[in-house]
Order: sequence, then structure tokens, then C-alpha cells
Amino acid sequence: MDNPRLQTVLRKVKERASNKSELKDCHIHVCSENNFPTAAGLASSAAGYACLVSALTKLFNVQGNVTDIARLGSGSACRSLDGGFVEWTMGEKDSGEDSTGKQIVTEDHWPEMRIIILVVSGKKKAIGSSKGMLRSTQTSPFLKHRADKVVPDNMKKMQAAIKSKDFPAFAEVTMKESNQLHSVCQDTYPPISYMNDTSWSIVRLVHAYNEYKGQIKVAYTFDAGPNAVLYLLKESVSEVLAFINHVFPPPNNQEKHLYFKGLPSESNHEVTKATLNSVLSMEPQQNAVKYIIHTKVGPGAQEITNEAASLLDENGLPKL
Amino acid sequence: MDNPRLQTVLRKVKERASNKSELKDCHIHVCSENNFPTAAGLASSAAGYACLVSALTKLFNVQGNVTDIARLGSGSACRSLDGGFVEWTMGEKDSGEDSTGKQIVTEDHWPEMRIIILVVSGKKKAIGSSKGMLRSTQTSPFLKHRADKVVPDNMKKMQAAIKSKDFPAFAEVTMKESNQLHSVCQDTYPPISYMNDTSWSIVRLVHAYNEYKGQIKVAYTFDAGPNAVLYLLKESVSEVLAFINHVFPPPNNQEKHLYFKGLPSESNHEVTKATLNSVLSMEPQQNAVKYIIHTKVGPGAQEITNEAASLLDENGLPKL
Repeated sequence: MDNPRLQTVLRKVKERASNKSELKDCHIHVCSENNFPTAAGLASSAAGYACLVSALTKLFNVQGNVTDIARLGSGSACRSLDGGFVEWTMGEKDSGEDSTGKQIVTEDHWPEMRIIILVVSGKKKAIGSSKGMLRSTQTSPFLKHRADKVVPDNMKKMQAAIKSKDFPAFAEVTMKESNQLHSVCQDTYPPISYMNDTSWSIVRLVHAYNEYKGQIKVAYTFDAGPNAVLYLLKESVSEVLAFINHVFPPPNNQEKHLYFKGLPSESNHEVTKATLNSVLSMEPQQNAVKYIIHTKVGPGAQEITNEAASLLDENGLPKL
Repeated sequence: MDNPRLQTVLRKVKERASNKSELKDCHIHVCSENNFPTAAGLASSAAGYACLVSALTKLFNVQGNVTDIARLGSGSACRSLDGGFVEWTMGEKDSGEDSTGKQIVTEDHWPEMRIIILVVSGKKKAIGSSKGMLRSTQTSPFLKHRADKVVPDNMKKMQAAIKSKDFPAFAEVTMKESNQLHSVCQDTYPPISYMNDTSWSIVRLVHAYNEYKGQIKVAYTFDAGPNAVLYLLKESVSEVLAFINHVFPPPNNQEKHLYFKGLPSESNHEVTKATLNSVLSMEPQQNAVKYIIHTKVGPGAQEITNEAASLLDENGLPKL
């Protein structure tokens, strides 16, 4: 328990506990397991703190919205307690206490939505996202303009797109928000680069595919790391996987289930080599992508029994 | 003469000719030679059009500032007619006719200034700079903010820094301007990336070196391509080359003069391996940099005789 953030979270939970006297002499043993690349810009700390806060608040019988407590562990953890699509509201207070997570729709709202994560590198980030964001706040002339003028408008568009299940609108805002986040990182001094050459190949692949289809069928987003998170509808998965396979083929000697994880990732789509070459004009890049996770929008933090846990694979998805 | 921009330039030169009748029946044979990587974001077209306009306006005896004609060939060519440090004024007219080049100081003003160009890739750009800039104008929410709020202020700072030979101020504006240009490219939709992983290694090298020295001793700038242009004072060249050599060593079997071009690039600086490793913590990247040009601020377009030309090496510098 040397981690100061963890201590802050625990103190806050205890403050709101409704069974303080009952537990006041108890010590707490936390055992945390994780099946996701850490410190790679894939919100692993958000997932971890969401679980921790969910478990602790259950133990201490804390009532009401506890996303503000999760936020003290990792900013984005306030989005990870609920399932479905969650908004991180900015809030107005300097203390940040009204900056919380708010569910927009549940995980059942848009069942066709799929997510393909291309894990480019599990290496530790050159600069952590909290430290990076602080440096951007202090030095980027663009950040204030973005916060004042661009984000509020995009938040409205995004909410409307999710509620009405308008995929092209959802996808365009997703890509533009990702681009502008990294634009601010580049405008920071000294500048920050989370995306690498492989990330940019994925950006080009996505735009080339959408242009080929004549409409936006897949979106990318990059967080504080080089890994890509692609959003697409179930109907597009097979064809998009054919394009991904063309540019990022699995390593020759790797077993298929070590490269494709999560939901089945069969590409049955009949797309010819000639089409792939003319649409993409990109050389295959073996080993640029480490592995691929195919998943979908899920529920939030869950309490599971040991028995239930044994039925899940290493991605937290039901064993096939 | 199928090139429409070349025709525009020639027509404009003829309009302003003061010896029209004399030359009206002459055909013009243009022979252009170039010793710089083309379409790599190193302003090769600016150099070419500056030469062409300089030669044509001499032939047609055009008087006065002709940078507006050069700009019709390649925007940045209006900066390349004069030597020293040149400002590209924005102008106010929609036609762009008052957007011209204006010399700030001559090439003798700051004789200590040196330039080291790391040629990362001679490959053709994914998107040309004119086309890219047009797309940014149409789609980047940041570009207008940059043009209105950031550039005018930086232009003032830059002029003052050059006139007073304030290297740290010059260097900081140079790096921030480069970062923000590429930030706008990233904010464009679809986004544009001219820098690659090697470019980012150079950015990290420069910031690490400056931090080690406790003050800004070297600056980077990237144009519409992955190649880095470094600015530094003569006194820093030897030590900076030791750092560059550590991360980007010459290929094993390449002759030294093919890797280091231009001014002598001896690194006599006694910097230990241990220092290099602790300052940079970067692995050597052989073959990431193709070659290195060491040069300085020079004069503008020059008329030279064949005899004089034979005394210059392939970089346009006096043969050693």
C-alpha cells in the first residue's frame, strides 16, 4: 500500500462507508490480476481502479455514484465502472469532485458494435498520460482552444450518434477526436508522440478502406500509446480482418489463437489480392502488430465467483 | 514546358519584361540541375523556382522585387531568392500578390550559425505540401487559431531573436513552430504525418542534449517530410556530432564523405560512451539516417560561370 493514489482512494471509500464501526479493525488484503497490456495507453489502470473501487465500495457499503472516487485513482477510471457507453463529464469545480462518469446507454443498446484492438507494442510509455496531460496544459497553445471550442461540440455530436446508432457520425467524431488529442500532444513543449509508424499505417489502412467502401465503415482511436482501437459493426468484421491480415499478417510460426484473441476472428470474406493491393498499396509488415483482440461493448465492473472466473479466458471473455 | 506553374511563372516574367521587343521571337531552353533530395520536404522546389525566376528575370531585365513571381512556382520559393534570413510576409490581398519574401538580415549577420540536415528518407512524400496545406485549411479546427493568434507573435519573437543573435530564443521559436505545424497536420482530416519514428528519435535526441547542457544549444525543425534540419552555433557542432554519431552511426561499409557532406564534420569532442548512454538512453539506429549535410546560412540565387561551377562540390559548396 505504498501507492499514494491507492491510499487516497481507500481513505475516500472509508469516509463514505456506512459500516465503519463494523470494519474499523479490519485490514484489507488486495489481490489484483490483470489480463491487459499495462502502461501501453490501453486504459489498464482505469480498469484496475474501477475494479478496486467497485470491490471496496461494496465491502464498505458505500451508496450512490462512486465514479468520483475511481477518478482519484486514474482519471479515466470514472468511465470504467459502468458498462455500455459512458461519458466523462468535465464538471465545473476546481476540486474536480463533480468530474464524474455518467452512463449514456447500457451495453445492450448497440449490440452490433464490435471493437478490434491492434496491440502494437506492450512497452512502457515514454511519458505517462497524467504527466503528459499536465505538460500539455502548461505549454500547448491549442489545448485551451480545443477544450473551449471543439470538445463541447463533439460531445454533443457523439451522444446523438450513440443514441441514434448512427455509425458514420460516431466514427467520424471518434477519429477526429483521436487526431486532435495527438495534435495537442505534438503541440506540447517538448512535444509528445504516442503514435508510431505502425500506428500511422493503421490510420492509412482505415482511411483507404473507408474510401474503397464509399462510406465510413471503420474508425480508429489512439489513446496514450501506439495501439489502435478500431470500432466497426459486426457486418464489417470479416472484410476488415482481411485487410488487416494483408498488412499485418500473423507471425509465421505463431499459433493463430495467440495472435487473434477474444471473439472469433475468422476472415471468410472473399476479397482478392488485387483489390487489397490496389486499395491499400502498402507492403505487409510482419511483427509490427503483436496481437489482435476482438471484443465488444461489455458491462462494467462485475462481482464474480471463483467458479464463474474459471469459465473465462485470459481476455475475460467466455471460453469457447 | 508542360508544367502549368512553370508557364505561369514565364508569363508573369514576360509581362514585366523591360526588353520585350528584343526577345519576343526567342525560344527559351531551360536546363535545370539539382543536388538536393527532391519531394522530401527539404524545399527543393523552392530552390529550383528561385533559381529559375532569378535567371529569367535577369534575361528579361525585370526590375524590383520578384519574389511574388517565384511564389507562383512554389510558395516557399519567395524566401529563397535572397540570402541570409528571409521572412515570408503573409500579405493581405486575397490574390496573394502582396505575399512576398523580405530579407531580415544578410548572410553575414550571424556567421556562427550552422545547419546540420539529417536526411532520413529521400522517398517521395505521401502527400505534397501544397495539397496537404489545402486539406488543412479545409478541415483543421486549429489552423485558424494558429494563423490568428500564434504565428504573428512568433514572427515578432523570431525577428527579434535573429536581429539580436539570441540563440536560445531563436531555437525555442523554431522548435515550437515546427511542432505546431505538424500538430495542424495531425489535426487535418484525414490526418497527415510527415514525421516518422526516426524524426521523433531526433526530436528526443535534441531535447535530451539541451537538458544535458542546461540550456538550448540546438534546435530541430521539420518541413513537409521526415528529414530534420538542426540549427546550432559553430561552437556546438563537434559535440552535437558526437551525439548524432552515437544514435545514427554511419553504415559500416560506407565511405565517410558519402555520409557526411558539406562542411567538415569532424567530431573531436571528448564525450564518453557512459555520458552518451546516460544522456540519451537510445539504442544506435544504423541506416535510419541516409546521410548528413553540414552547411551554413548562404547567399541567395547566384549567377555563376561554368568555371566557377566546376569549383563547387555536389552540395554547391567550395570543393575542399
